[in-house]
Amino acid sequence: MWLVKIYVTLKKGLLDAQGKATQNALESLGFKEVEEVRIGKYINIEMKGQNQQMVIQRVEEMGKKLLANPVIEDFNYEVEVLK
Amino acid sequence: MWLVKIYVTLKKGLLDAQGKATQNALESLGFKEVEEVRIGKYINIEMKGQNQQMVIQRVEEMGKKLLANPVIEDFNYEVEVLK
Repeated sequence: MWLVKIYVTLKKGLLDAQGKATQNALESLGFKEVEEVRIGKYINIEMKGQNQQMVIQRVEEMGKKLLANPVIEDFNYEVEVLK
Repeated sequence: MWLVKIYVTLKKGLLDAQGKATQNALESLGFKEVEEVRIGKYINIEMKGQNQQMVIQRVEEMGKKLLANPVIEDFNYEVEVLK
């Protein structure tokens, strides 16, 4: 069994409205040292797979088909053997 | 300047409705090897701070006051010096 940790983030240069709202909220709470906030998704997938190469191939497919929008989002991940 | 990478995840044992819906969608797309999907938030904060200990203290406060709900969510993070 494998654990895949996936990070889906907005591409650089795109306005992150949720991040900006969070930054404003932090500032109004007194956290004036915050310069930028960007919010993405952190997806954990537990899955079967014969080997790491096969898992990577399948995760790439999942990213393209469902998990990320390649026009506006970056899709990165780490694959670990699950104890 | 510091970069703080924050992971906000639902506590173990709590039903992750968004994760379950994603798992079902993956299965209907043919990804039948997927056993579990859990979806959290990945927050990147760029902030000023005198030293790492000070940054950690402020990030802990942000977590308690705004970024996570400690009743249902775990709040983890890494602090890096920003180049």
